[in-house]
Amino acid sequence: MRDVAIIGVGQTKVGEHWDVSLRHLALEALQAALADAGVAQADALYVGNMLSGELTGQENLGALITDFAGLRGIEAFKVEAGCASGAAAMRMGYVAVASGLANVVVVVGVEKMTDALGPDVTAGVAMSTDADYEASQGISLVAANALLMRRYMHEFGYSHADFAPFAVNAHRNGKNNPHAMFRFPLKAERFATAPMICDPINLMDSSPTCDGAAAVVLASGDSARAFSTSPVHVAASAAGTDTLAVHDRRDPLVLDGAVLSTHRAYAQAGIEPQSIDLFELHDGFGILSTLSLEAAGFAERGEGLRLALEGEIGIEGRVPISTMGGLKARGHPGGATGVYQIVEVVQQLRGLAGDNQVTNARIGMAQSIGGTGATVITHILERMD
Amino acid sequence: MRDVAIIGVGQTKVGEHWDVSLRHLALEALQAALADAGVAQADALYVGNMLSGELTGQENLGALITDFAGLRGIEAFKVEAGCASGAAAMRMGYVAVASGLANVVVVVGVEKMTDALGPDVTAGVAMSTDADYEASQGISLVAANALLMRRYMHEFGYSHADFAPFAVNAHRNGKNNPHAMFRFPLKAERFATAPMICDPINLMDSSPTCDGAAAVVLASGDSARAFSTSPVHVAASAAGTDTLAVHDRRDPLVLDGAVLSTHRAYAQAGIEPQSIDLFELHDGFGILSTLSLEAAGFAERGEGLRLALEGEIGIEGRVPISTMGGLKARGHPGGATGVYQIVEVVQQLRGLAGDNQVTNARIGMAQSIGGTGATVITHILERMD
Repeated sequence: MRDVAIIGVGQTKVGEHWDVSLRHLALEALQAALADAGVAQADALYVGNMLSGELTGQENLGALITDFAGLRGIEAFKVEAGCASGAAAMRMGYVAVASGLANVVVVVGVEKMTDALGPDVTAGVAMSTDADYEASQGISLVAANALLMRRYMHEFGYSHADFAPFAVNAHRNGKNNPHAMFRFPLKAERFATAPMICDPINLMDSSPTCDGAAAVVLASGDSARAFSTSPVHVAASAAGTDTLAVHDRRDPLVLDGAVLSTHRAYAQAGIEPQSIDLFELHDGFGILSTLSLEAAGFAERGEGLRLALEGEIGIEGRVPISTMGGLKARGHPGGATGVYQIVEVVQQLRGLAGDNQVTNARIGMAQSIGGTGATVITHILERMD
Repeated sequence: MRDVAIIGVGQTKVGEHWDVSLRHLALEALQAALADAGVAQADALYVGNMLSGELTGQENLGALITDFAGLRGIEAFKVEAGCASGAAAMRMGYVAVASGLANVVVVVGVEKMTDALGPDVTAGVAMSTDADYEASQGISLVAANALLMRRYMHEFGYSHADFAPFAVNAHRNGKNNPHAMFRFPLKAERFATAPMICDPINLMDSSPTCDGAAAVVLASGDSARAFSTSPVHVAASAAGTDTLAVHDRRDPLVLDGAVLSTHRAYAQAGIEPQSIDLFELHDGFGILSTLSLEAAGFAERGEGLRLALEGEIGIEGRVPISTMGGLKARGHPGGATGVYQIVEVVQQLRGLAGDNQVTNARIGMAQSIGGTGATVITHILERMD
């Protein structure tokens, strides 16, 4: 098995792109990544996407994007794992290069959620929960998270306002990210009074549906320096799963899929949580950030929220999260998000994160969640110098 | 890179299973394959599926099926490449084992097309064509193939009746396959007078939409004999792509994606077409069989149909195809089909194809097509004794 490195990254601005189609979004990110890597061709393309069929009437995205990008002929598929689809495509790209079957692989995460055909986007996103036992009973993704948040507040004695620091931190960082959807600061007071979406999750605790695409180019670790002056080593790539429906779990407040995924990644990279300089976690809702911090070993059960309350999740904190705005402020374009996270960790490790730079970042972790913690994919990236 | 072998296979009967859900279909095939392999656990599960979101409101099938099958915790994703989704999942499973990252991988192809939510199934299948330039203009998958068939008849002087041998052969073989959807013989006269679907493609030239699931278990070639007394070597796994829209092709009557995919597979296996003892091709329509035979090097451009007319596609012929009924008679449950083809080649190589046994079959090829030739995935399997 070969070492794998990232030799190029690209991304579009996240937002409501009413005038741009899915293929154009994918092309923009892909071309930026190829240009960054200085390559014109690849051996394979893996597309992370969740809802292209449901929302735009287009499947077979592998062929669509290779064709539109002038890469016609190469191997290409779409990989789907709910909102973790982009990370799943990254994982498949990693495996292909690690195997030696491909030398240069492009991974594109893309989602086009505005200007959608029916069903509505919330119903589409709910397809990553259990259709028979959750979604069809009205338990959308936000509803499932609302149940988890209510339970967490009840069990550990937290208030709704205690979750504000996640959104405040995300907006503080998103403000400086030119690719972010929301570039305005958020005060805790506005969090407290935002319109309710699904009690206790309100508008300012929710990541937005939107459009966007991000791409990375992978090559073998041995060849990486021939392509790039600043390659980034993929020190670990790991996946884990849990029950699809939340009600089947041994403990709804422990994301077992994230525990498995993260600890497999730590073992592969040979590191402990303490070595992580930044953690791009799946902050779709504040409760997910909380549970993710706990599952990844940064806090005990019931203590994850304290990291936020004590200011440890900021750029200068002990566990910087959502450093470019996260799902909350950069935006959460479904199957693209997992690739955005990778791109942002690379920006940090290259020292190109601008005002959001984590000082001397050497090791970054990205984690993407599909469904309510059902599929969890973790990558650990490391500077190569 | 490690050698990869198939150590177990399983399949459900193909048909209209109104009383069975997607997860139950997948479970039945998966459990049969695990039992055949004699294993209870796996390192990863890849699901080939095309339309679960559109037709059943369920995405995140990786987590769904691992959960339902008691494999909770392992890596699991869905892979989509139109009607080639099952073969794409097989390819991902192959790569995972070849890389050494996984020792035992289960690949499940599953599609549930009856009892569907809107859109109708034809519109769903058309999502594997170009949504903007084909499907939205009314060019469904059958319409695109009808254009190809008309052009082929015009250019090479064939009649509609000349395509009958493909369907007749498929039904002859499907009759003996207990898992096939259609188990009745078909006469050329009935082919000639069948109701028209999309001129010149009629009902008896079309593969049916239906439900089904098939599964294979993969392990490293070195370990295969420890699991199975009749493992089958995956001698090649290769993918190719072409333009998504047919009108963009240099020659609409040459499936360049199939040429690339097949010749990459021949090179990997180190063989010529003459070594292939049977060829499970993507006989969604007779014209696709014709063009596939030509692309794979069994006939020159315009000559593929002669193989059918001269009886060379039968069990005793030079290039046996659709040996268990093919898409036409076994049935074509979308993203499951590519895995059914693998299962059937394994049956042939194990000598377990019953009345349809190809004498002394040693090397078999399976090829799956997504869209109108846009994504083509080829596997070559070989007996290990």
